[in-house]
Amino acid sequence: MSDDQDLIQGYDPRTGEPAGAPLPATPTGDVDRLVAAAEAAFPAWQAFDRAAALEAVAATLDEHVDELVALADRETALGAPRLPGEVARTTGQLRLFADLLREGTYQDTLIEHADGPRPDLRRVNRPLGPVAVFAASNFPFAFSVAGGDTASALAAGCPVIVKAHEAHPHTSLRTAELVREALAATGAPEGVFNIVFGFSAGVHLVQHPAITAVGFTGSTRGGLALAKLCAERPTPIPFYGELGSVNPVFVLPGAATKRTAEIATGYAGSLTQGSGQFCTNPGIMFVPEDAVLLDAIAEAVSGTVGAPMLAERIHSGLVAGLDDLATVPGVRLLAEGKPGEGPWAPTPAVYAVAADDFRTHAARLREEHFGPVGIVVTYRPGENPTPAGVGEGHLTSTIHLDPANESDVAAAKELLPHLERIAGRIVFNGWPTGVAVTHAQHHGGPFPATTAPAHTSVGAAAIRRWLVPVVYQDAPAALLPQSLRD
Amino acid sequence: MSDDQDLIQGYDPRTGEPAGAPLPATPTGDVDRLVAAAEAAFPAWQAFDRAAALEAVAATLDEHVDELVALADRETALGAPRLPGEVARTTGQLRLFADLLREGTYQDTLIEHADGPRPDLRRVNRPLGPVAVFAASNFPFAFSVAGGDTASALAAGCPVIVKAHEAHPHTSLRTAELVREALAATGAPEGVFNIVFGFSAGVHLVQHPAITAVGFTGSTRGGLALAKLCAERPTPIPFYGELGSVNPVFVLPGAATKRTAEIATGYAGSLTQGSGQFCTNPGIMFVPEDAVLLDAIAEAVSGTVGAPMLAERIHSGLVAGLDDLATVPGVRLLAEGKPGEGPWAPTPAVYAVAADDFRTHAARLREEHFGPVGIVVTYRPGENPTPAGVGEGHLTSTIHLDPANESDVAAAKELLPHLERIAGRIVFNGWPTGVAVTHAQHHGGPFPATTAPAHTSVGAAAIRRWLVPVVYQDAPAALLPQSLRD
Repeated sequence: MSDDQDLIQGYDPRTGEPAGAPLPATPTGDVDRLVAAAEAAFPAWQAFDRAAALEAVAATLDEHVDELVALADRETALGAPRLPGEVARTTGQLRLFADLLREGTYQDTLIEHADGPRPDLRRVNRPLGPVAVFAASNFPFAFSVAGGDTASALAAGCPVIVKAHEAHPHTSLRTAELVREALAATGAPEGVFNIVFGFSAGVHLVQHPAITAVGFTGSTRGGLALAKLCAERPTPIPFYGELGSVNPVFVLPGAATKRTAEIATGYAGSLTQGSGQFCTNPGIMFVPEDAVLLDAIAEAVSGTVGAPMLAERIHSGLVAGLDDLATVPGVRLLAEGKPGEGPWAPTPAVYAVAADDFRTHAARLREEHFGPVGIVVTYRPGENPTPAGVGEGHLTSTIHLDPANESDVAAAKELLPHLERIAGRIVFNGWPTGVAVTHAQHHGGPFPATTAPAHTSVGAAAIRRWLVPVVYQDAPAALLPQSLRD
Repeated sequence: MSDDQDLIQGYDPRTGEPAGAPLPATPTGDVDRLVAAAEAAFPAWQAFDRAAALEAVAATLDEHVDELVALADRETALGAPRLPGEVARTTGQLRLFADLLREGTYQDTLIEHADGPRPDLRRVNRPLGPVAVFAASNFPFAFSVAGGDTASALAAGCPVIVKAHEAHPHTSLRTAELVREALAATGAPEGVFNIVFGFSAGVHLVQHPAITAVGFTGSTRGGLALAKLCAERPTPIPFYGELGSVNPVFVLPGAATKRTAEIATGYAGSLTQGSGQFCTNPGIMFVPEDAVLLDAIAEAVSGTVGAPMLAERIHSGLVAGLDDLATVPGVRLLAEGKPGEGPWAPTPAVYAVAADDFRTHAARLREEHFGPVGIVVTYRPGENPTPAGVGEGHLTSTIHLDPANESDVAAAKELLPHLERIAGRIVFNGWPTGVAVTHAQHHGGPFPATTAPAHTSVGAAAIRRWLVPVVYQDAPAALLPQSLRD
């Protein structure tokens, strides 16, 4: 969240110059009207063919991929193949939820016929009502206007009002126009989807009595402020926030020896991809203190080149965090990449610290540095890494092991019960960046990774955030929803 | 929650005299030791045969039913058949969760094999960790020490520390001893279950860093205070609170005509059962303004007799609320039952108010009166009742209709979309008291009925409160939990 402003100005990260005309912030009176329209649309949207509507939105966005990518590239500098790929991911998400609606298990229906004194009970999930979605900075499509939160909430039957991220206002506005056009063409109820701009509009939105839940992807500070607003409403509502994560990686000795080069280049790629602006970025990696591996990591990171970050504020936040990091006792710069072009392109960097020093200064060292910057923690040869100090909540944790190496397997078995408690996804011999959109995916984790660790914001189960059960006791058949009749 | 005290004294509701010796409140140092023991027991409990352990607890409680009922009767005056029935419900709950563990679907396992660029993803639910359970006043067994919260959390794999309710300390202590003995006899890890007494111990418990979630059944005021503590921890944790509900009932004209006597006696029974101390008590009932029905209701309530309430504070709270109720314009006393014996036995009562007056003063009239007291709202003949004014969150809502009466069916269809949004269970032609413990049951509702409306505290799905998913990406088979292997 930023300070209040009447105009939302996007910038070109490659130059730092304004990108497009400023857009007006949404007045709170307009927010009220949009929420009233969402509330009015709620009954009709529940009865609507939402699968067809989501597919129509997907088709429209795909048809306009070039226009959307051009807008987003100017505001984010994320380029190709990332941006066309992200549009495809976004429309794939919409279609996944269309399939889920047709398949039906998301309703969690359960019919128990009367049995002796036990009544007839039939349970089904229902949508909460209109919801607010706060778009993320780092995914201008997949976690933004028509991203996973919006797709899953619309699928659930909830009207959606998106609060656009100020890092890409024109991308957001155009996406919203296309979503609205596509929905209107299918005959969806007016008001089922809308967008607002600006900090004050967002605050007004989460405090509106008709809003029933909030989805958020962003900073810990902004997320906690919104979570507090949700909790302190006269009627508190669920806040599904994805806040921050440093995604610890544990490289075990056998893997370090056997796959030295692959681990070094894989790490450098995962660390610097998208200028490091991923919630699953591998912020802390434990490696054996081994000169060959450390040299390989240094070489791989040295070969990377900086890329513009999404906003001046994100870049300056990274720089400020690194100033602090450099003063932590025992921390040394292991390697740097080449500086990027433009005013907001950081130099990728990896720092090293011994495990003992890490544990001593863990509270400072586990701060998230949002960007292409990582810390390598070296543990003594003959020892195994421990998760001590990495903190309690992450989206992911990763183990690199040689499955044929008994000592690696034993060390992994010792780590696992700890990692299961601190991360929602455990990656083996891979990298945490890249989150598959599937049925089994879980993109969540204990606080502060997310504020509701039982829930995922990626994959089919994301729909569960917007649903609550209702059970009908001894209902006449004529009054039951269709899915609950015999 | 009450003020702090060093000694917990139970009372005999029939006389108001102390029942048994006072019990010491648990010092916070002891709470710390118990939480540490729970945390230490967590890994072993996850691997334990928890189904067998829960069945052993059930068997032990059943064996001691007479002793437990005698203790509880002295502290609650709930008598027979209620108390033996409640022990049976409690042991039935424990066995339901044992069955659920053997059946396995609560783990929500999902295996997706690798497919092209998509990794192998395998999701399973894991238990959160040690949890705190705050026992309720009004169910000395089923929502207390070995009640639904404890049974579902232990089943999930979470060690449990119960904060006993001060209305039945000896019942709580003895139940806890039996649970501990039964668990120890099965070889369950020491520390997996414990009990604490006193307000300070409860507050210390929810703030302990190793506690991962809280279950609570009680007053809105106490629940909100605990919810705030949970939200303001350095690491916030889920708070599953069941707070308050007035459970609106809508009697439609056809049903009122056809089943006048049955509705009147059913209502009086549901209202006064257990001295009205149920979270599903029918606090507000809409009826057509019909002299025959109102007379029948008055007659039925007149025939009831007061019974001792659980505690002096509960009785005085009811009396104070009624003093306020009597001053609301348009409210009149429709009928009273006979006064009960002893100092804490209220006189059952039903008040009447016209629908227009109800809507005008709804904020005052929908306050919960915990006890055998209800409000009948009369709507005009030829009109249908509307839920306007009944508030946003209830555990239940009830419709009485004649399914053969087209006008009743039409009115019910109009009501239903509103009732689905304000209540977790919709009862047809029955009464909200009596909550079946089954797989399909949902005992929850929008705030303030519960603080987490997607969850139930009764029935098999109650286990979900204590579970979070974890997904394994590309894990070697040897490192997967057994349930996720091919």
